[in-house]
Amino acid sequence: MATDVVTMEKIVSLCKRRGFIFPSSEIYGGIGSSYDYGHYGVLLKNNVKAQWWRSLLQERDDVVALDSAIIQHPRTWEASGHLAGFTDPLVDCRTCKLRFRADKLEDGACGRKPSKRPGETSECDLTEPRNFNLMFQTTVGPVQDEGSVVFLRPETAQGIFLNFKHYLQFARKKPPFGIAQIGKSFRNEITPGNFVFRMREFEQMEMEFFVPPQDAQRWHEHWLKERYDWYVNLGIRADHLRLREHEQDELSHYSSATSDVEYLYPIGWQELEGIANRGDFDLSQHAQHSGQKLEYVDTVTGERYIPYVIEPAAGADRATLAFLVDAYDEDEIEGETRTVLRLHPQLAPVKVAVLPLVKKDGQPELAREIERELRERMQVEYDEGGAIGRRYRRQDEIGTPWAITVDHQTLEDRTVTLRDRDSLEQVRIGIDELADELERRLRAPWRSPKLSD
Amino acid sequence: MATDVVTMEKIVSLCKRRGFIFPSSEIYGGIGSSYDYGHYGVLLKNNVKAQWWRSLLQERDDVVALDSAIIQHPRTWEASGHLAGFTDPLVDCRTCKLRFRADKLEDGACGRKPSKRPGETSECDLTEPRNFNLMFQTTVGPVQDEGSVVFLRPETAQGIFLNFKHYLQFARKKPPFGIAQIGKSFRNEITPGNFVFRMREFEQMEMEFFVPPQDAQRWHEHWLKERYDWYVNLGIRADHLRLREHEQDELSHYSSATSDVEYLYPIGWQELEGIANRGDFDLSQHAQHSGQKLEYVDTVTGERYIPYVIEPAAGADRATLAFLVDAYDEDEIEGETRTVLRLHPQLAPVKVAVLPLVKKDGQPELAREIERELRERMQVEYDEGGAIGRRYRRQDEIGTPWAITVDHQTLEDRTVTLRDRDSLEQVRIGIDELADELERRLRAPWRSPKLSD
Repeated sequence: MATDVVTMEKIVSLCKRRGFIFPSSEIYGGIGSSYDYGHYGVLLKNNVKAQWWRSLLQERDDVVALDSAIIQHPRTWEASGHLAGFTDPLVDCRTCKLRFRADKLEDGACGRKPSKRPGETSECDLTEPRNFNLMFQTTVGPVQDEGSVVFLRPETAQGIFLNFKHYLQFARKKPPFGIAQIGKSFRNEITPGNFVFRMREFEQMEMEFFVPPQDAQRWHEHWLKERYDWYVNLGIRADHLRLREHEQDELSHYSSATSDVEYLYPIGWQELEGIANRGDFDLSQHAQHSGQKLEYVDTVTGERYIPYVIEPAAGADRATLAFLVDAYDEDEIEGETRTVLRLHPQLAPVKVAVLPLVKKDGQPELAREIERELRERMQVEYDEGGAIGRRYRRQDEIGTPWAITVDHQTLEDRTVTLRDRDSLEQVRIGIDELADELERRLRAPWRSPKLSD
Repeated sequence: MATDVVTMEKIVSLCKRRGFIFPSSEIYGGIGSSYDYGHYGVLLKNNVKAQWWRSLLQERDDVVALDSAIIQHPRTWEASGHLAGFTDPLVDCRTCKLRFRADKLEDGACGRKPSKRPGETSECDLTEPRNFNLMFQTTVGPVQDEGSVVFLRPETAQGIFLNFKHYLQFARKKPPFGIAQIGKSFRNEITPGNFVFRMREFEQMEMEFFVPPQDAQRWHEHWLKERYDWYVNLGIRADHLRLREHEQDELSHYSSATSDVEYLYPIGWQELEGIANRGDFDLSQHAQHSGQKLEYVDTVTGERYIPYVIEPAAGADRATLAFLVDAYDEDEIEGETRTVLRLHPQLAPVKVAVLPLVKKDGQPELAREIERELRERMQVEYDEGGAIGRRYRRQDEIGTPWAITVDHQTLEDRTVTLRDRDSLEQVRIGIDELADELERRLRAPWRSPKLSD
């Protein structure tokens, strides 16, 4: 592991201290592996999702959007294979009464001797493994009988396959084209953990890209490159990213080839996004189970085929965590350690802070005027409390790329200082030019200063 | 009901035809009262949500954001009163075997004689009403015992109350301030319906605004006006909106005063958003159930109190439906009926269409060049298929406010025609000015042309 990766403790601590992310339902003692996003966390994650949409819907013309329901018809999961196969092997301990994943005993802790793992202590007397389905089950309608059993989706992808036909018909689309979706998925895992890296309830950003079968390989390579570049262009260091091709024995039942974009998290190299060639598995399965034809027919040539699918499946929470980890930095200013999030300006929760140097002499009033004008264009924060250095630190810590300071001179010549989070450079600029200058900077190509370390 | 309100059938038909919204899981016969948003639907709803965030987070400095988990600690629902009281009275028919809401028998249809309502026919032999809880229930962790029973949240609001303390502590907030959240909620109702107006799974936009108790009345009025204006500023006709104060016997157990913003849907006047004074009910309940102090303490004056809460609770789906209904219009162009969505440009799924007049003479290439440049700034669509009039109609129908046409002259002088969806006015403009002109129009105040009807 690289020595320049921050510890998870520091990230968790910053996230709680500044209200990015905190454990769910904490006043009731929490609910395992579940987190709530606070103010800056929502702004950051919204920006991550907006950039994903932008890269697919706005910058391209071959991808369209979908937002399908979390509770789908239960036959969906028969066809997809989840009902039969989406399971973890679990064992019970007859002594300590806890339940563990048979294939992850090294992650468990014995209930009687928490310092011991269930596999390594004779305290634990384990049953044979049994398979438990990971889908959350509930009933729809007020009757609890078998006919109304439904599941919370364990992935957003299947909603796309169910709607494939609509897009051919109503969106006038033909392969190659993609359907993209952002939304929550749910997996009833027994050993999630590592902060927001693995939660029972999480948000996915998935796209199914439908192609003629003979072009699948080429499109798979295209999307590997596109998705890798997306992270790099938003500021992730290339030496913290890698592509790893799945071995034959790792491949899911539906996939003929999968590569993961892996990121160097504080817990080591882990999957950030999987990019799979799912072939025609899903459309064929749903065609068979629904009795509907899910194929593309070229009205000119008469050619007909079931498209192959290339799926870049990213996690909004994992991506947000990666951006936080990668942006985290500490340096020294005036003999003090400064914590700074070197986030891409497009991702930063707040774009600019407006700070009167002192809380008198008309400075707060003028600063409020500037704040109001800038609010028309971007996310702004006003702060007049405490020493200016301390206020800069507060903004650095949440990744605000720029700070505007209103001082004595401002009241004379209507110029302010504009400070850069990374270079610490301060330039003097007229109030009337501020909004345009900030928008220019926001749109400019950006490169993390950590890259030149 | 006003005669200028479109029928629900026309809205449903347009939504399906153009891929805004369609029934969920349709290839498996659908799943009741559940809808998926297609491409234009996602773009529209994303814009509605972005405008809501913008009005609260970007344009104000007294509201912060939250995104809390859907599955919260189950004690949440004991404290909130949902576990005991969030029920519908249901009756069974011993003859036709169907189940009905006792208080909504007029909406039901007998299973044997679907033309008859259960209340009006002797076919139906109804049981006494029993109360069924509307919360979806599931189990967390792989064990199905009582300790692990959890619920899908029936409202996003409670997640805000659970986190109230964090915001005092970490977000340095003090009353008056608000916490806003957008997210899915779930209600296992027996008689939902009316398209996306009432679904079992729906998206809320809720804000809890915490105030000193003595200021609650004033803030209630403030938010009534703010939220009413939000709809009007985004193009809803004022004569299709009204404020209606709840009668004493309509008030929820937690509310001392509630007013609804009602919209004139095709099904009549219905709640678009409820704005309640919840008093200190929720914080007091959670304080009692959690044993934690949920109060504000002024560190200077030593004053301490449990804030009152003003809650504007909007539905993202209901708002999207209202914007669609209100924007729907038909007029006549060249002897043909034109369907046009007169959406506010900020809400329109696509901002501008780029259309080569003919599919030759270098026009498509130049149009593609313009398209690529505009994609940097906004959501664009390129369309070269079919007669130009038909392509305009396609854009009108999805509410695209502007269309750019590349013609013979464009290749000579690099000017294009810029067509306005509502006025149908066409102006000639240089390619280099297009992006700035469109951004200027997007930012300009906007008034629905329907207002001058």
